[in-house]
Amino acid sequence: MKNNSRTIKIGVIGYGYWGPNLVRNFNQLLDAEVVFICDKDESKLARIKKIYPNAKTTTNYLEILKNKEIEGVCISTPLETHYEMTKEALLNNKNILVEKPFTKNSEKAKELIEIADRNKLVLMVDHTFIYTGAVRKIKDLIDKGELGKLYYFDSERINLGLIRSDTNVIWDLATHDISIIDHLFSQKVVSVSTVGSSHVLDKKEEIAHISLKHENGFMSHIHVSWLSPVKIRKILVGGDKKMVLFDDIEPVEKIKIYDKGIDIKPEQITPFTPLYRGGDILIPHLDQTEALKRVAENFIYCIKFGKKPLTDGEAGLRVIKILEAIQKSLELNGQSVNVL
Amino acid sequence: MKNNSRTIKIGVIGYGYWGPNLVRNFNQLLDAEVVFICDKDESKLARIKKIYPNAKTTTNYLEILKNKEIEGVCISTPLETHYEMTKEALLNNKNILVEKPFTKNSEKAKELIEIADRNKLVLMVDHTFIYTGAVRKIKDLIDKGELGKLYYFDSERINLGLIRSDTNVIWDLATHDISIIDHLFSQKVVSVSTVGSSHVLDKKEEIAHISLKHENGFMSHIHVSWLSPVKIRKILVGGDKKMVLFDDIEPVEKIKIYDKGIDIKPEQITPFTPLYRGGDILIPHLDQTEALKRVAENFIYCIKFGKKPLTDGEAGLRVIKILEAIQKSLELNGQSVNVL
Amino acid sequence: MKNNSRTIKIGVIGYGYWGPNLVRNFNQLLDAEVVFICDKDESKLARIKKIYPNAKTTTNYLEILKNKEIEGVCISTPLETHYEMTKEALLNNKNILVEKPFTKNSEKAKELIEIADRNKLVLMVDHTFIYTGAVRKIKDLIDKGELGKLYYFDSERINLGLIRSDTNVIWDLATHDISIIDHLFSQKVVSVSTVGSSHVLDKKEEIAHISLKHENGFMSHIHVSWLSPVKIRKILVGGDKKMVLFDDIEPVEKIKIYDKGIDIKPEQITPFTPLYRGGDILIPHLDQTEALKRVAENFIYCIKFGKKPLTDGEAGLRVIKILEAIQKSLELNGQSVNVL
Amino acid sequence: MKNNSRTIKIGVIGYGYWGPNLVRNFNQLLDAEVVFICDKDESKLARIKKIYPNAKTTTNYLEILKNKEIEGVCISTPLETHYEMTKEALLNNKNILVEKPFTKNSEKAKELIEIADRNKLVLMVDHTFIYTGAVRKIKDLIDKGELGKLYYFDSERINLGLIRSDTNVIWDLATHDISIIDHLFSQKVVSVSTVGSSHVLDKKEEIAHISLKHENGFMSHIHVSWLSPVKIRKILVGGDKKMVLFDDIEPVEKIKIYDKGIDIKPEQITPFTPLYRGGDILIPHLDQTEALKRVAENFIYCIKFGKKPLTDGEAGLRVIKILEAIQKSLELNGQSVNVL
Repeated sequence: MKNNSRTIKIGVIGYGYWGPNLVRNFNQLLDAEVVFICDKDESKLARIKKIYPNAKTTTNYLEILKNKEIEGVCISTPLETHYEMTKEALLNNKNILVEKPFTKNSEKAKELIEIADRNKLVLMVDHTFIYTGAVRKIKDLIDKGELGKLYYFDSERINLGLIRSDTNVIWDLATHDISIIDHLFSQKVVSVSTVGSSHVLDKKEEIAHISLKHENGFMSHIHVSWLSPVKIRKILVGGDKKMVLFDDIEPVEKIKIYDKGIDIKPEQITPFTPLYRGGDILIPHLDQTEALKRVAENFIYCIKFGKKPLTDGEAGLRVIKILEAIQKSLELNGQSVNVL
Repeated sequence: MKNNSRTIKIGVIGYGYWGPNLVRNFNQLLDAEVVFICDKDESKLARIKKIYPNAKTTTNYLEILKNKEIEGVCISTPLETHYEMTKEALLNNKNILVEKPFTKNSEKAKELIEIADRNKLVLMVDHTFIYTGAVRKIKDLIDKGELGKLYYFDSERINLGLIRSDTNVIWDLATHDISIIDHLFSQKVVSVSTVGSSHVLDKKEEIAHISLKHENGFMSHIHVSWLSPVKIRKILVGGDKKMVLFDDIEPVEKIKIYDKGIDIKPEQITPFTPLYRGGDILIPHLDQTEALKRVAENFIYCIKFGKKPLTDGEAGLRVIKILEAIQKSLELNGQSVNVL
Repeated sequence: MKNNSRTIKIGVIGYGYWGPNLVRNFNQLLDAEVVFICDKDESKLARIKKIYPNAKTTTNYLEILKNKEIEGVCISTPLETHYEMTKEALLNNKNILVEKPFTKNSEKAKELIEIADRNKLVLMVDHTFIYTGAVRKIKDLIDKGELGKLYYFDSERINLGLIRSDTNVIWDLATHDISIIDHLFSQKVVSVSTVGSSHVLDKKEEIAHISLKHENGFMSHIHVSWLSPVKIRKILVGGDKKMVLFDDIEPVEKIKIYDKGIDIKPEQITPFTPLYRGGDILIPHLDQTEALKRVAENFIYCIKFGKKPLTDGEAGLRVIKILEAIQKSLELNGQSVNVL
Repeated sequence: MKNNSRTIKIGVIGYGYWGPNLVRNFNQLLDAEVVFICDKDESKLARIKKIYPNAKTTTNYLEILKNKEIEGVCISTPLETHYEMTKEALLNNKNILVEKPFTKNSEKAKELIEIADRNKLVLMVDHTFIYTGAVRKIKDLIDKGELGKLYYFDSERINLGLIRSDTNVIWDLATHDISIIDHLFSQKVVSVSTVGSSHVLDKKEEIAHISLKHENGFMSHIHVSWLSPVKIRKILVGGDKKMVLFDDIEPVEKIKIYDKGIDIKPEQITPFTPLYRGGDILIPHLDQTEALKRVAENFIYCIKFGKKPLTDGEAGLRVIKILEAIQKSLELNGQSVNVL
C-alpha cells in the first residue's frame, strides 16, 4: 500500500526554455522534489548546480530513467525526441509529463498511450493553458450554458519572439489553442482548412491562419504568427446570450464577459439593422495560481492515486490528430481536410 | 470652355447610413452644393427639409437624373440597385460617385466603365479608406521601401453593430480591406480562400476569414465579423525592415511604425532563437482631414478637369473580381479560387 | 393657464465653442425651437443662416431680450459677460440657461438668484456633467451606500487643447469637477488648498492642483492642466466597500466598479501587508443620451412647469464660492482657505 | 594593492520584500557573491537554505558585521532600523547599500555620511529608479535640452497593494519620485506643500498630494496612494519643445516622447485658442537591464575603485530633507514649508 504523504521524486529531461519552470514549480510542492536534471548543454548543468545544489545533473537522460528512486519524469525537449524518450521512460516504469505537442504524429501517440495503459503509468501532456484561471472560467461559463448557443471561437496568438527551427508556428503556438478548443467544446472538430507562409525559415511557416469546423457547424479560427511587431494573445468566444474576451496580455482584466446578446429574428432585419442588445460587462476575479503549478499538482496527484490526468495521452492524441489534418491542409494549399 | 471656379451641383440618391455624410461633406466644399436629395422614405425627406431647406427632395430618383443643372450624382443605396441607377445616371450624362461595393458582379462593373468612358464621364467608387491619412501614410512607407521585403497584410474588422440584409459581412466590411490591399500593393491578388459562417441570418455570413495570395507569394488575410462584442479595426503590415500597425479605434495613435526587423539568417536559427532586433516605435502625425471630404474634393476636381479619380471604375472592378472569387471559395467550403 | 405641449422659443447668445451644441440640442426637442441666435462675429452669422435658415440672427443680444416670443435664453459667452447679460435677460422676463462658471464672484451670483426668484424665472447653470449617464451612475452608487464609507474623490482633467485668455484653467476645467463634487457628496467642502503655475500666459494658470476638505475629513483632489501631451479625463471615487473609475476617454467602458474593499483592521497590519480583498469588476451599461440633450429637456420642463432645475442658481453659487476660495488659496501660495 | 577581478563578498540584512531581489541580483554578477543572509524570521532562513545552500544564515545581524570576509552589506530592513544598523556596519568597516528612504531624519543621514567619509567607505542608497532605462532616457532628454524650457513634473503612483505599518505612503512611495526629481533637475526644490489623509491606519496617511516648488518657479507634483483600485505608475515631464510620458505599467511602450510644443505667444491668445503644434510621437527602445542589477554593479564597482556611487549618501540626504519638509507641511495642514 502506497503512503500518500510521501515525496515523489522527479527527474527533468531538457533544461531549455520550459525546463526551469518545471523544476521551480515541482520544487514548490510539499510532496515533490526534482532530484535529477538532464541537459545536453554542460554549461547549463553548471548553472543548475549553483541554483539547485541538491539535484544531480547529467547529459545522458538514460541515467535518469535508470534511477530507481525517480517515479515521475518530465520531458521538455524538442518535439522530435518526445516519442523515443517517452517510450523508453515508460518502459523503465516512469510516469510521464511530456511537453506539448505530444508527438510528431498520431501513430506514435497511440503507441505511447497503449504502453502507458498496459503498465498502469500516468501519461500526461503539458497543455498548460487548460489549467489557467481564465480557461477554467470560460469552461465554466460554457458548461453552465451562460453563453447560450455558440457562434464562434476566435484566437489570435502573434508576436515577434522566439522562433523554433524544430517545427513551424502551428505546432509551436496553435497547439495551445487546439488544446483549449478540445477542452472547451463537446462538439468535435471534423475538418480543418489552413494557409500559411514562410519568409525567414526554409519551409517552416512563421504565419498561419487555421479554420476548424466542428460537428454542428460551429466554427473556430486560429491566427498564429512569429512575425508580428505587437504581442497579441486574445481569444473571443461568442454565443447568442453572452460573449467572452480572454486577453492574456492584460495583467488583471484577463476575462471580460459581455452581456450583449443577439435579440433580433431574421425576419426583422432590414438593411442596416443595429443587431445587438447592450448590457453590462463583467470582469470576474480569477484564480491567480500559476497554471504550471496546477499541472505539477495534478501530475503528482495522479501518480499517487493512479488517476488519469485532465490532459492525458488521449487529449494529447486528439490535439495531434487535428495538427496532422492542419499540416495536410497546409500542404494542399488550404484545401479542407477531415480530422481522422 | 469650362469655368473652373464654378459651383458643381450635386444630387444624392439614398439618405440612409452614408447619405447624410455625403451631403454634409459636399456642402462643406466651396465649389459644390447638394441641390437635390432622394430617398424612398418620406419621413426622412421631411427631416432633410428641416436641415437643408435649400435642397429639393424626392422619392423618385429619376427626377434627379432628369435635372439638367446637376452634374454629379452620388449613389448611396443598397448594392442591388447600384448597377441600374449608375447606368441610367450615366446615360443621363451624370458624373457618378457610387458607394462600395461597386456592383454585384464584374460583368456589370465592366459595362458601367465602358459607358462612362464612351461618354467621357467620371465614374468614381467611394473606397473611402484610400483617402484617410493613415492609409496614405502606409502607402507612402511601402512605396519608399521603408518596410523592406513585404511579409504579410493582416486585417481584423469586427464588432457588434449594423447588420445588413442586402448582403453578407464580406461584401459589407471586407470590401474596405480589399480596396486597401488593391491600393497598397503592386503585387496583384491571384487566388483566395475563404470560410464563413451564418448564425442569425439565413445564408448571409456574419463571420468570415479570407486568405489572399499575391503574385509573389506574399499573403494577405482579412477577418470580418458582425458578431464580436468588442470593436476592433486593426491592420498589420509586416516587412523585413519595418512593420506597421494601423489601429483605427485609437483616436490619436492610429499608426505605429515598428523599427523591428528580422536580422537572422536561416542557418543561424536553433530551437528557440529570439528572432528580432529591437528598435524605436514611431507614431507619425497624420493628416486629420475627414477622408470623405477628400473623396468629395477628388470627385469635384475630376468633373471639372476631366480626370480619372484615384478610385475609379477600374479600381472598383478589381475589388469586385476579388469579391467574386471570395464568394465562390466560400461556396466551395474554403477551396482556393483564382481571381480572374 | 399654460398649454404644456406648446413649443418653447429659445434665443442663444454666443455661438463660439459651445453655442452650436446648444442650438443643435434644443432643435432636437419636439417642444423647443431656437428662433434667434446672436454672435459678435458676422461671419459666423452667415454660417448660421446656411445651417438654420429659419432662425434669425443678430450681433446685438438686446434684440433677443426684447423679442416677446422668446421664453428661454441661453448665454454661452465668455465669463466676464455672464452677470450683465443674465441680469438684463431676467429683467426682460426671460428664463435663463447660462454656461459654467456661473459668474465671476458669489456676490453677483446671489444677486442673479434673487432677481430670478423674485420674478419666478428659471435660472439654470449648465453643469453638463451632472446629466451624463456616468455621473448619474456614480451618484446612484453613492446614494445606495454601495461604495461604503467614502475615502476620496480624485480627478485628473488634463490635455493639450483649447486655452482661454478670459480665465485660468481652474475656472475653465476644474469647474466641471467642483460641480460634480457638489452634486455627488452630501458632505460640504469646508476648505481648499491650491497651487498652480503659469508658463505661456501672463498670470493665468495653465496647471493647477486643488485639494478640498469636506465636512467629515473626506478629501477631494483635482488636477487640471492645459499643458499635457496626453488627454486624461479620469475620476476615481474610493470607499471601503467598492471603488469607481470614471474614464471619460473610453468610448464604451466609461465606468468600472471595483468590488475591492479594504478588509483589514489596523491592528492586523504588519510591514508590507497586502491590503485588499480581490473581487469582480463591473462595467455597467450606461444611458447613452447626450448630456446636453438632458440639460435642454430639463430647462424646457422647468420653464413649462415652474420647477427648479437640478443645477439651479444655488448650485451655481456653491460652485462659485469654492472657486473663489481656490483662487484665494492660489494667490496665498497654497495656504488653506475656508469656503464661506 | 587591490586585485580588481576578485569576488566581493556580500552580506544581506533583511530578507522581506526586497531582500530576495538583492540576493538574486548580486549573485548574478561575476565578481560578487552573497555569503551571509540575516532575517529575524527563522522560517525564512530555512527557505533561504534551500535556495542558496552555500550562503550562511543568521537571525543576528551582528554576525554579518563581525565577519571579516564580507566587504559589502545590504540593509533591507524597516526604516526605523536603518540608522543604527548602517552606523554599526560602517564602524565595522563595511561598505553599505541601504534601502530607501535612507534614514528617519536628516541629522542621522548627515552623521552616517560623515562616518562613511571619514572611514573611506562606500555609502550608497538604493534609489533603484535612477538606474532604469526609462529614467536614464528622460535624464538624457533633459540634459540635451530636447524638452526645451521645463514646465512641470507630474507623478501618479497609486494602487491597492502593500501597506506598511512602519511608515506612511509618502515615505514609502513618494520617495521614489523625490529621488527621480532630485536626479533629473538641476533646479533644487525650495519649498513643498502637502495634504494627505488616513482611513485604514491610525495617523499613517495612505493618500497624499505633494506640490514641490523648484528654484526657478518650475513645479513638481506627486500623487501617491495605497487605496486606488487601479494601478497607475505614470510620470509626465513637460517642456515648451517636447513632453515625455513615462508609463511604468506598459510592458514595452514605457516612454513616449511627444513632439508637441507650444508655439503660441501670449498676445495671440483669444478665448478658446488651440494651443499646440501637432507632431510625431516617439517610443524609444530602452535598455532592458533590470535596474537593481545596475545598482549592484555600481555598488561593487565603487567598492573596488573607491568611487562615489551615483546615489550616494548625499543624494539620500537631499531626499530626506525634502521628505522632512513634506512631513512638516502635512502636519501644518498643507502650509508651504521650506526645504532646509
